[in-house]
Amino acid sequence: MINLASDNVMGASQQVLEALVAANNGPEAAYGSDHHTAEAEAMLAEIFEHEVKVFLVATGTGANALALAALSPPWGAIFCHEESHIADDECGAPEMFTDGAKLIGLPGLNGKFTAEWLETAIARYPKGVVKAVQPAAVSISQVTESGTLYSLAEIAQIGEIARKHDLGFHLDGARFANALVSLGCTPAEMTWKAGVDVVSFGATKNGCFACEAVIFFNPARAEHFGFRRKRSGHTVSKGRLLGAQMTAYLRHDHWLDNAKHANAMAKRLNEGLAALPGVRMPWPTEANEVFAVLPKARAKILSDAGVRAAPWYELSVSLPSGAAIGSDEVFWRFVTSFATKPEEIDRVIALARS
Amino acid sequence: MINLASDNVMGASQQVLEALVAANNGPEAAYGSDHHTAEAEAMLAEIFEHEVKVFLVATGTGANALALAALSPPWGAIFCHEESHIADDECGAPEMFTDGAKLIGLPGLNGKFTAEWLETAIARYPKGVVKAVQPAAVSISQVTESGTLYSLAEIAQIGEIARKHDLGFHLDGARFANALVSLGCTPAEMTWKAGVDVVSFGATKNGCFACEAVIFFNPARAEHFGFRRKRSGHTVSKGRLLGAQMTAYLRHDHWLDNAKHANAMAKRLNEGLAALPGVRMPWPTEANEVFAVLPKARAKILSDAGVRAAPWYELSVSLPSGAAIGSDEVFWRFVTSFATKPEEIDRVIALARS
Amino acid sequence: MINLASDNVMGASQQVLEALVAANNGPEAAYGSDHHTAEAEAMLAEIFEHEVKVFLVATGTGANALALAALSPPWGAIFCHEESHIADDECGAPEMFTDGAKLIGLPGLNGKFTAEWLETAIARYPKGVVKAVQPAAVSISQVTESGTLYSLAEIAQIGEIARKHDLGFHLDGARFANALVSLGCTPAEMTWKAGVDVVSFGATKNGCFACEAVIFFNPARAEHFGFRRKRSGHTVSKGRLLGAQMTAYLRHDHWLDNAKHANAMAKRLNEGLAALPGVRMPWPTEANEVFAVLPKARAKILSDAGVRAAPWYELSVSLPSGAAIGSDEVFWRFVTSFATKPEEIDRVIALARS
Amino acid sequence: MINLASDNVMGASQQVLEALVAANNGPEAAYGSDHHTAEAEAMLAEIFEHEVKVFLVATGTGANALALAALSPPWGAIFCHEESHIADDECGAPEMFTDGAKLIGLPGLNGKFTAEWLETAIARYPKGVVKAVQPAAVSISQVTESGTLYSLAEIAQIGEIARKHDLGFHLDGARFANALVSLGCTPAEMTWKAGVDVVSFGATKNGCFACEAVIFFNPARAEHFGFRRKRSGHTVSKGRLLGAQMTAYLRHDHWLDNAKHANAMAKRLNEGLAALPGVRMPWPTEANEVFAVLPKARAKILSDAGVRAAPWYELSVSLPSGAAIGSDEVFWRFVTSFATKPEEIDRVIALARS
Repeated sequence: MINLASDNVMGASQQVLEALVAANNGPEAAYGSDHHTAEAEAMLAEIFEHEVKVFLVATGTGANALALAALSPPWGAIFCHEESHIADDECGAPEMFTDGAKLIGLPGLNGKFTAEWLETAIARYPKGVVKAVQPAAVSISQVTESGTLYSLAEIAQIGEIARKHDLGFHLDGARFANALVSLGCTPAEMTWKAGVDVVSFGATKNGCFACEAVIFFNPARAEHFGFRRKRSGHTVSKGRLLGAQMTAYLRHDHWLDNAKHANAMAKRLNEGLAALPGVRMPWPTEANEVFAVLPKARAKILSDAGVRAAPWYELSVSLPSGAAIGSDEVFWRFVTSFATKPEEIDRVIALARS
Repeated sequence: MINLASDNVMGASQQVLEALVAANNGPEAAYGSDHHTAEAEAMLAEIFEHEVKVFLVATGTGANALALAALSPPWGAIFCHEESHIADDECGAPEMFTDGAKLIGLPGLNGKFTAEWLETAIARYPKGVVKAVQPAAVSISQVTESGTLYSLAEIAQIGEIARKHDLGFHLDGARFANALVSLGCTPAEMTWKAGVDVVSFGATKNGCFACEAVIFFNPARAEHFGFRRKRSGHTVSKGRLLGAQMTAYLRHDHWLDNAKHANAMAKRLNEGLAALPGVRMPWPTEANEVFAVLPKARAKILSDAGVRAAPWYELSVSLPSGAAIGSDEVFWRFVTSFATKPEEIDRVIALARS
Repeated sequence: MINLASDNVMGASQQVLEALVAANNGPEAAYGSDHHTAEAEAMLAEIFEHEVKVFLVATGTGANALALAALSPPWGAIFCHEESHIADDECGAPEMFTDGAKLIGLPGLNGKFTAEWLETAIARYPKGVVKAVQPAAVSISQVTESGTLYSLAEIAQIGEIARKHDLGFHLDGARFANALVSLGCTPAEMTWKAGVDVVSFGATKNGCFACEAVIFFNPARAEHFGFRRKRSGHTVSKGRLLGAQMTAYLRHDHWLDNAKHANAMAKRLNEGLAALPGVRMPWPTEANEVFAVLPKARAKILSDAGVRAAPWYELSVSLPSGAAIGSDEVFWRFVTSFATKPEEIDRVIALARS
Repeated sequence: MINLASDNVMGASQQVLEALVAANNGPEAAYGSDHHTAEAEAMLAEIFEHEVKVFLVATGTGANALALAALSPPWGAIFCHEESHIADDECGAPEMFTDGAKLIGLPGLNGKFTAEWLETAIARYPKGVVKAVQPAAVSISQVTESGTLYSLAEIAQIGEIARKHDLGFHLDGARFANALVSLGCTPAEMTWKAGVDVVSFGATKNGCFACEAVIFFNPARAEHFGFRRKRSGHTVSKGRLLGAQMTAYLRHDHWLDNAKHANAMAKRLNEGLAALPGVRMPWPTEANEVFAVLPKARAKILSDAGVRAAPWYELSVSLPSGAAIGSDEVFWRFVTSFATKPEEIDRVIALARS
């Protein structure tokens, strides 16, 4: 079977796995006071070239929901793309963790909204008017749900609106590394230099078992985070489990290497599929995700041969006009990872071509 | 250093670690649909001799809070010992997950409350009277916060009151195995045969890295659990991480062996310390925890030699009358684990004797 | 001053006021056990020609939020028009009372969404998929936020989709009476006969001081409502205050007479304004609200003469295409009430014409 | 019938009722922007001799829960008497409005806890330790649930502990006026001069229909209150309903006169009952509540004659030792009000004596 349904269908990378084994011996203080976790924090400060406050958790939904809760009161409005992961794929976790804040979905092609849209939406919720939820935060996904990227300029424009209206700016970086190596910029450039306040720094999909870091560039915003994390059950007792994964992930550019590989595999798949007659790629492949509209006949060949992809939402507002999925087509997402092999990609292409 | 501050200061057992490594290869369906998780569920059904609905999570606080949320509406009352872990050590997680239910703390020596106390407390919250929160659940810790055990008869008595008043009955089994091997009974006897509806089945402290199972004996009670787990960020994406730990933990009685060892180490420590002049053991050692009141001078020798224990709450209502801690004494908890070595125990005793 | 900014700028009607004074004497059981409240429940059962469970509260936001909480779990999706009152004007009360359910805003002209839109939106949240919030309820406003009405057929179509997908169907009837007399139907026809499960039956705007009834047609849905109402502080201790208002409101068709008067005043105003050059009415006047786009010059004359209206949201998605508000225009809402005098309307028209 | 079950079984006083009628005419801005509400705020500032931020609501539970939410985060601990109204009689409203804070019940005779108890309890929740909820607020009831009063010195001692530990200090003044006239002090002395930060200033029980003021002495604490009030449905649209009650209540010392009358009636009842053989008064009558232990035979005579009192909790921890209620006794609460007539009291005493 070639499983490209998601980048979470693979386990951990060899380097991460070995680090975990090595970290197993001897006593360590619990609840994140272990020395691996401390080292992870120091490494992230260096990588981001900024003072940071770091909190490790085991899941992306936990990371996102906790981060948003740090930015918005219960009567806050959190602006995001209307098909973002926080809006559509976390069963209301942001609402739970913020005690009922409102996610305001913004439209936009390719999974991205613009600074202009954000500004317009903010105006709908006037400051101090008690009947209106109060603009509190904005969140972007980088990589987006459509596998695309915000440019540094686009992030900075959103950051400017955020600053102007005193919104916290959250970046959901479940695929942070994939975005970073694709843009070819530094972590600082993609985050705080563009106005981002808090990052969900994903490591799970790109080589870990279960490890995400919530990173604050302003420690004041993190003041109550420890309580929120504990209270939501996200303080792992044997904290070395998280700390050892994260340090291994960051060491020797392992995270960047993994992401480069995954992106290269996606590019290879995209090029192969795009060249096939009857196949359409509604969104550009800018990281490690490939979205394809395939004739059902071709899709069946893939399925029958054991290729797994994820059926995608056919009515997505992110689709360009004219891209409606036909009744004889399927709309599939393929995700490559650190573990994807070139020959697997080639096999998928060959099958789709046959 | 000999760290006996908790049983979560050690990593995973060799057997669990190796299983994790072995489970790492190849693709697996995400979010708990992997085959390890399925096997864990089957093993637990067999071990508990009952149809079960199982949900794996990474933390004990997550397990407890999710279990309680399945039992109590926001206007519910959850009865528990006033110094139980859910009441005192989870930063209000049960309140968060239940959307504001009220924990009603019951008094009782040795970390235990009686069925009589429960019955009296329930009467305070009459059914259908809207100003009163409504009795919804009862929760016991087995092992208790004082390191003691409820007998099977005591559990059954509480279970009877629970059934009589239509309360869900939760057992916080963070140290389930330690209790089980000490009582010498079957898992069924300690749970559903005594009226328990839901168990937080802890594996982390007894040999895993981060793995707990919430086990329901009545599937109807688990109807919404999947949504609650997802929404709280406790659905681990690479589910094999949890599934592989749990299956390794249960296989070949590994969990029972680990617990027997830990309990034996605690017994050894308890006997050694109890024999020392000036040392008092306010609570009996019935599992893998040893509580000791030590002269400060002896305590200092231990600290100086690198022995770590956890200072305990000196005003605990669970202390028998006459056991007040003196100003020249300390009140310490020692916890042994699967990884504690006999020579470590002997060294602690020798130091304390010196 | 002629204040037409809302129908809540006036006090109570004379009949309601006198009933309140008459109800003041002597002791009455508290917390809604008074005989006025019991009588109100009986009157509503007769008016709605159905068994009902009735809960009186003092505010519309309280009524709506409590009603929705009875229909949706925290992980539920509540479908409504994207500019409905529950979505935009209650500062997140539905999110608070449901403990974090998600309001899914549906688009639609004239403040109304269609059954087709609802069906499409429901498909986005597949049943049993834990990452998706679960379709739980649908809510319409009758009168809508654009002052328009759903026809009985439109309500029934939505009711059919609700039944098909097992959604609770809520009707926000802050201006229930105004809608009813305009449609010329019975309360039963506008509600349970069309599939509505719960009504927020508003009386405040149409002649009371502060009184709304949450009406359930299926008592099972109301099972926990008493606890929710108490717990949210909406159980008024001197319940006669609510009961006496509601009985006076319903007695001798007072509520219908008030609504007929208010609607007639709105019709008069609408006709007068629509006839003026340069004035546009983007939405039809179907109850007691008049929305007008006025040249700024005319608007200034009105303001200067002490006429009060409510500036409306100029980017409303409910506006028909081509109705964009110009920079030399204002977009105002006028609301008439039981207390509006014909000569006030004539004066407003005369001023606007001048 | 002579109904002394509570002081909320009567309607409004004549003065309040007339003010409501007088306030009914003409338009007024909605949602608390009316001039009556503004006047109420000014009057309260004068009465309390302090800058205040005032929010009117219709219910005591709403006032208390909103006030506490302003003082405590979700992970906060709120210290109160274990049988206080907020702990026992509001169905978990504080938990709902604070999004899950924990009420820590303190013991104490006569419905009062001491500053020492508070200090001891605070120590249980160390600052910055994430597993522990964080001390955030303390709340006292004045009049207490046992009908007794904290002296000014006792309040000040609690206030001192609150300041020392940075807790917000809330006073539940559902019967504020009754306490005030009994102590013979100024509102300032009973509140901010003793360290109180927020008061639930009750007017309903003492002459209004439904009106309570939440009063902040430090405007910063009230920063988000408007949003919380709106979001919880406690912003009454026709705000004059509340404003007119409150101004009438405060004008010409009406509130103080009402309270003096009610207290005098309670004193008369207490003296009459206490003189009867076999009747015991477990708590002193210090305001307008009389608690009596009566032989069942006498109680039956009262019931049969149409006298209503409220059966009280026989296992109350506030009862002095030796005061256990016998099986041939009842434990009743009588509450007098502004509307209680001396001849009613005399009739009750005569019946009880017969």
